[in-house]
Amino acid sequence: MTNQAHNPTIKNPAIVIFANGVSKHLERHRNDVAQADFILCANGGTDACLRLGFTPDLVVGDLDSLAAETLELLHKNHVEIIVHPEDKNRTDLELALRQAVARNPKSVLVLNAIGGRLDLLLANIFLLASRELASIPVTLADGNQSVYPLTGPKEFTLNGRPGDTFSLVVLSDKAEGITLGGVKWPLKNAALTFGSTLPVSNQFMDNTAELQMKSGSILVFHISHPSEEAFL
Amino acid sequence: MTNQAHNPTIKNPAIVIFANGVSKHLERHRNDVAQADFILCANGGTDACLRLGFTPDLVVGDLDSLAAETLELLHKNHVEIIVHPEDKNRTDLELALRQAVARNPKSVLVLNAIGGRLDLLLANIFLLASRELASIPVTLADGNQSVYPLTGPKEFTLNGRPGDTFSLVVLSDKAEGITLGGVKWPLKNAALTFGSTLPVSNQFMDNTAELQMKSGSILVFHISHPSEEAFL
Repeated sequence: MTNQAHNPTIKNPAIVIFANGVSKHLERHRNDVAQADFILCANGGTDACLRLGFTPDLVVGDLDSLAAETLELLHKNHVEIIVHPEDKNRTDLELALRQAVARNPKSVLVLNAIGGRLDLLLANIFLLASRELASIPVTLADGNQSVYPLTGPKEFTLNGRPGDTFSLVVLSDKAEGITLGGVKWPLKNAALTFGSTLPVSNQFMDNTAELQMKSGSILVFHISHPSEEAFL
Repeated sequence: MTNQAHNPTIKNPAIVIFANGVSKHLERHRNDVAQADFILCANGGTDACLRLGFTPDLVVGDLDSLAAETLELLHKNHVEIIVHPEDKNRTDLELALRQAVARNPKSVLVLNAIGGRLDLLLANIFLLASRELASIPVTLADGNQSVYPLTGPKEFTLNGRPGDTFSLVVLSDKAEGITLGGVKWPLKNAALTFGSTLPVSNQFMDNTAELQMKSGSILVFHISHPSEEAFL
């Protein structure tokens, strides 16, 4: 709301969600947040958002875990807060994602979700890849690592630079009809199985990599500038 | 080999694998390594092993990515090295795991695999849960986070302390017949689906948590002493 570009009433908004996680790289996503139509914070993610100098449009959270000063700031800025009880059956990010999906978003970028507890990280990534949310174009990004959950049939083009890392991780039992171009080790109508490490650590040979997939569920990873360390 | 307990010829050895990753917590696993029957290093994991003061029994790696001093030290200690080419279809950890499995291990503890690049982390975890490796009791541990891939039917008991975090993440489309005891939110013959965040962030109520599962594939997470931060 401090950023005039944000308009909660826009149709098909580009939504940024601050997850309740840990990131050492939030500063790099300042432009992504500035360009968003709607900023949604999952509970403790509110603090990360405020630290970066943005005011959320909506906070989904347990008021008990927000600091008094944070709450005061939210109230002062008339930020909508949707409170949920602490003993809940869904993670904070899941509640935030459901709020995002209800707004029929053009895109959802999830920040602040990759570092931190591994159980939450995996639960959140799998949630993004689940049937219920598979239709929404979601990106999970932190610093130079971006993750795209895709469910077939799908055509997908990714912009990068020669040398960038391009990895696939199969989430379903099988992912079939996978064709991969613009990378060092291309694939043509390949079938990949769960647990295969074959499609990991491929490389951009050009400025775009193209992927077609007929069926199945995968995660696409893009690590840009791999000369930098991509530590969580 | 500096540690006299290690005997590469033992049947059903307890194997520790140093993955080629990043860990801030290796020191905490000194005893686990000391008690292992066999120490196996995946490529760059060799350095982590040596830094901790242990000599590997076997290194699986691309010699080009091992420092000259490391190679010299390995040669001086007559460490067996299985070289593989750089343009490979398997990750370093996969090659190491296949060496471990060939020794019919009683248990495999993978260290140094949880931090670092998320694509490799997920590929490695899914590999551990794949059909080919599902019969081997594998633990992935880093500091106070431990991950156990389980495939049903399975009975599993985990030792912990009241307040420790106990999470499930479903890897298959469904995991069925899940009964959970000793935790704050028990389950009885429950069915969980991929992407569900319901079984995340459960808690030990006692010193043991028991899980039975009829079918499916899951990851069990144990985060001990959750008052400490469990950051990757």
